[in-house]
Amino acid sequence: MARSEAAPSLTLIPADEARRILAETPPVAKERVALADAVGRVLAEPFAAPADLPGERRAVMDGYAVRGADVAGASALSPVVLAVTGNVPMGDVFPRAVGVGEAVAIATGGWLPPGADTVVMVEHTAPMDGGARVEISRGVARGANVVERGEDLTRGAAVLPGGRRLRPQDLAMLATFGVTRLEVYRRPRVAVLSTGNELCDPGEAPRPGQVRDANQTALGAQVQGAGCDVTRAGMVPDDATALRRAIARLLDDHDAILLSGGSSIGVKDVAADALADLEPPGILFHGIDIRPGKPTLFARAGRKPVVGMPGFPTSSLIVFDAFMRAMLWRLGGEGARDPWPARRAARIGREHRSVVGREDYLRVRIVEREGGVWAEPLPGGSATLSNVVFAHGLVRVDAAAPGLAAGEPVDVLLY
Amino acid sequence: MARSEAAPSLTLIPADEARRILAETPPVAKERVALADAVGRVLAEPFAAPADLPGERRAVMDGYAVRGADVAGASALSPVVLAVTGNVPMGDVFPRAVGVGEAVAIATGGWLPPGADTVVMVEHTAPMDGGARVEISRGVARGANVVERGEDLTRGAAVLPGGRRLRPQDLAMLATFGVTRLEVYRRPRVAVLSTGNELCDPGEAPRPGQVRDANQTALGAQVQGAGCDVTRAGMVPDDATALRRAIARLLDDHDAILLSGGSSIGVKDVAADALADLEPPGILFHGIDIRPGKPTLFARAGRKPVVGMPGFPTSSLIVFDAFMRAMLWRLGGEGARDPWPARRAARIGREHRSVVGREDYLRVRIVEREGGVWAEPLPGGSATLSNVVFAHGLVRVDAAAPGLAAGEPVDVLLY
Repeated sequence: MARSEAAPSLTLIPADEARRILAETPPVAKERVALADAVGRVLAEPFAAPADLPGERRAVMDGYAVRGADVAGASALSPVVLAVTGNVPMGDVFPRAVGVGEAVAIATGGWLPPGADTVVMVEHTAPMDGGARVEISRGVARGANVVERGEDLTRGAAVLPGGRRLRPQDLAMLATFGVTRLEVYRRPRVAVLSTGNELCDPGEAPRPGQVRDANQTALGAQVQGAGCDVTRAGMVPDDATALRRAIARLLDDHDAILLSGGSSIGVKDVAADALADLEPPGILFHGIDIRPGKPTLFARAGRKPVVGMPGFPTSSLIVFDAFMRAMLWRLGGEGARDPWPARRAARIGREHRSVVGREDYLRVRIVEREGGVWAEPLPGGSATLSNVVFAHGLVRVDAAAPGLAAGEPVDVLLY
Repeated sequence: MARSEAAPSLTLIPADEARRILAETPPVAKERVALADAVGRVLAEPFAAPADLPGERRAVMDGYAVRGADVAGASALSPVVLAVTGNVPMGDVFPRAVGVGEAVAIATGGWLPPGADTVVMVEHTAPMDGGARVEISRGVARGANVVERGEDLTRGAAVLPGGRRLRPQDLAMLATFGVTRLEVYRRPRVAVLSTGNELCDPGEAPRPGQVRDANQTALGAQVQGAGCDVTRAGMVPDDATALRRAIARLLDDHDAILLSGGSSIGVKDVAADALADLEPPGILFHGIDIRPGKPTLFARAGRKPVVGMPGFPTSSLIVFDAFMRAMLWRLGGEGARDPWPARRAARIGREHRSVVGREDYLRVRIVEREGGVWAEPLPGGSATLSNVVFAHGLVRVDAAAPGLAAGEPVDVLLY
C-alpha cells in the first residue's frame, strides 16, 4: 500500500543519525575471483607491492642506451660519436654491457644493458656508417629518459587499501604484478519486493483503482547500480503474515531485502508488523526527518538489512539515492565514500521553505541564464514521477536550515 | 611494443579536433529488450506519455475523500461533521459518489470517488459514533491532498529523448505506463587486443626483458564501464601481417577494436601498417597534441572504430578517460553527454609548464590544507603506473594555456 507521507506516530530520527546507523551495516563474506572478473568488485585485503616496479632500469623513449658521462657534453658544435654495438631486442635483454664510447639501440620499455644509465632520444641522433656509429648533437643529462628500478613503486609500498572498489587502473597495477586471483567481497544478493493490494504487474492492464508497480523495476535497477545482484521477488499483498513469510523465505538466500510500500503508519502498519519478530537487532529506526521519504524503515535480521522503502516511486528513488546506496556499499565491504561526487554549484531559482530539523531533497533542473547557473525546482510532490525524470539532480536542504532564499547558492547533487 | 611518446613523424591534431572526429562515430543497430534488462541501456526512440498520468484523481494522503465546499470553513471552534459512507478499498473503486455532507475513508494512492475533490488528512479528523461520522476541525482548501488526472504528465507529453541512457527513474516511468519491452541500441561488442613482443600474460613469470600485459585487463574494464560487452582477444606480436589478420577476424563479429601498443612511430609502425588497408574511411587521425597519449591512432572500417591506444598503461588509461569513453557512448547510441560530471574546484599545488597547443592531463591528489582545497600533481610520467592509482582525478591543462602557475584555480576531473 502506498501510504501517507504524514504519519504522525512515526518516531522520526534526524537524517544524520540515520546515516550513522546505516553506516554500521556489516559487510558480506569474502571470496576469491579472477582478475578479469574483478572490475567494480571491492578488494577485501590491502595490497602492497610484492616487488620493485619496474624491476629493472627501463627506457621510456626510443633511442640509444649509453653511459651518461659520454654524452653530457655533446652539442651541435661538438657532437659526440659512439660505436653502435647492437640493439636491445624487445622482450629480451642485450647480452653484453655498454662500454665507454658505445651505444646500444633500444626501444621504449626495453631494459638497459649493464653500464648504460641514460637514453638518448632517437630524434637527437643521426646514424653514420650505415648504422655502425651514431652521432649525438645535444647534451643529455645522466639518467635522462629512463625509469629506475623501483622508481614507480618500491617493494612493500602500500598500493591499494582494503575496502576499495577496484577501478581499471587498480586492475592494471594488479596485472602488472602478476596477481591473477584476488580476495574480494561477495556481491551482495539483494531481493526487492513490492507490497500493496493496489499494485499490478507492469505487463498487466490495471483495473480501476490499481496502479502498475514501478518500484521493483526502479529499485532493482538502483540495487544493481550499487554493485549488487538483484532478485525481483514480486508483489505481496498488504498482509503481515504473507509479508513475514516472504521475508523469512528471502532471508534464507539473500543478504538484504528492500520492500517498497507498507512502511508508513496507514490503516495498519503491515511492514512494521511483519518485521517485529526479526532476529536481533530488528528494527533500528522507523521514520527519518526528511522530505520526501519520511516513512523509511530500517531493520537488521542479524547482519542482514531489511529496509522498508516508501511506496511512492519518487520517494523511494530519492531515499535510495540519499541513504540506501551508501548502505549497500557498506554491505558490499566498501569503505566510506562520498555518495555525491558529482556536484554543480548553482543558485536556487525560487524560495523553498523547510522546517529546522528536517532535511529536504528538491528535484531541480539546471538552467543557465543571466550569466549564471540556476537550479530550478521542478513542480510536483512525491506523488508525481515526472520531476525525478526531468531533474538533472537534487538539492539537499540541510536539516539546520529553515529553507532556502531565492538566489541562495546551492550544490546540485547530479544524477 | 610500448613505443615512444616522442614520435616526431606523427601529424598531431588538436585535442578539440580529435573530439570532433570521435563524436561522429555512428551508432550500432537497435534491438528490443525487456524492461528489466533495460537499465543502463540507451533508448533508441523518444518516449511520449501514452496516457494522462495519473489516469484518475488520486489521494496523496491517508484520510477522507470529501467535497471541498463542505470543509473549507471547518475550524477547531466550529468543526464540521460528515457522515462516513464507506471506504475506498485499495486496488478497487468506491462504487458510489460522495454527496454533500458525506465522507469516504481513503488511503494514499486511492482513486477519489465521483463528487469528491479534496482529501482531509486523517491527522486532522476524529472519528465519532464508532466511525459512522467524522469530525473535521481544520479548514481544508478545495483540491488539497489530491493529485489531479494528468497533473504529473498529460497524454502526448515528451518524457524521454532518444539517445538517453536509461536511469532507474526512467524505468519507473516506463513501468508506470506499462512498457514492458522497448527499443534500445545494442550493447556494442568491443574487442581489446594488446600488441608487443615484450608482453607476457599476467599469469606468467616474465622472462628478462618482458613485462606483463596490463592493458587488456584495464582497457577491458574501461570498455565494460562504458556500457559495452568486451572480448579480451589476447596478445599479438609486433608484426603487421599478424595484426592485420587479427583485426580482420575480430571485425567480423565486433563493433569496435581497441589495440594497445603499436600506435606510435617507433622502429616500425606496425599498427599504422596493419590499418592502412582498412575499408574506408580508414585512418582518421594518427597523433593528438596531448600529454600523455600523443601517439593515439583512430581509424574506422566503415562504421566500426579501430583505435590504436598508446602502449604505456598510464597513457592508455588517460586517453580512454579523456577521449574514448565518449566515443564508445556514441557508438552505443548515446547523445552528447558531459564525460566529466564529477568535478572539484581546487588550486594547483605547483607550477606546471606546458606548450600552447598541447592539452595536458595531470594526475593529482586532492589535499585540504591552509583552509583550501589543493590539487597536488603526482610524480612520475607516463611510464609510471602508481600515479594513476594514487590519483583522485585529473587536471586538464587547456591547449590554449602555456601551463599553470602554482596556486591557479583548476577543476579536478574526478575518477
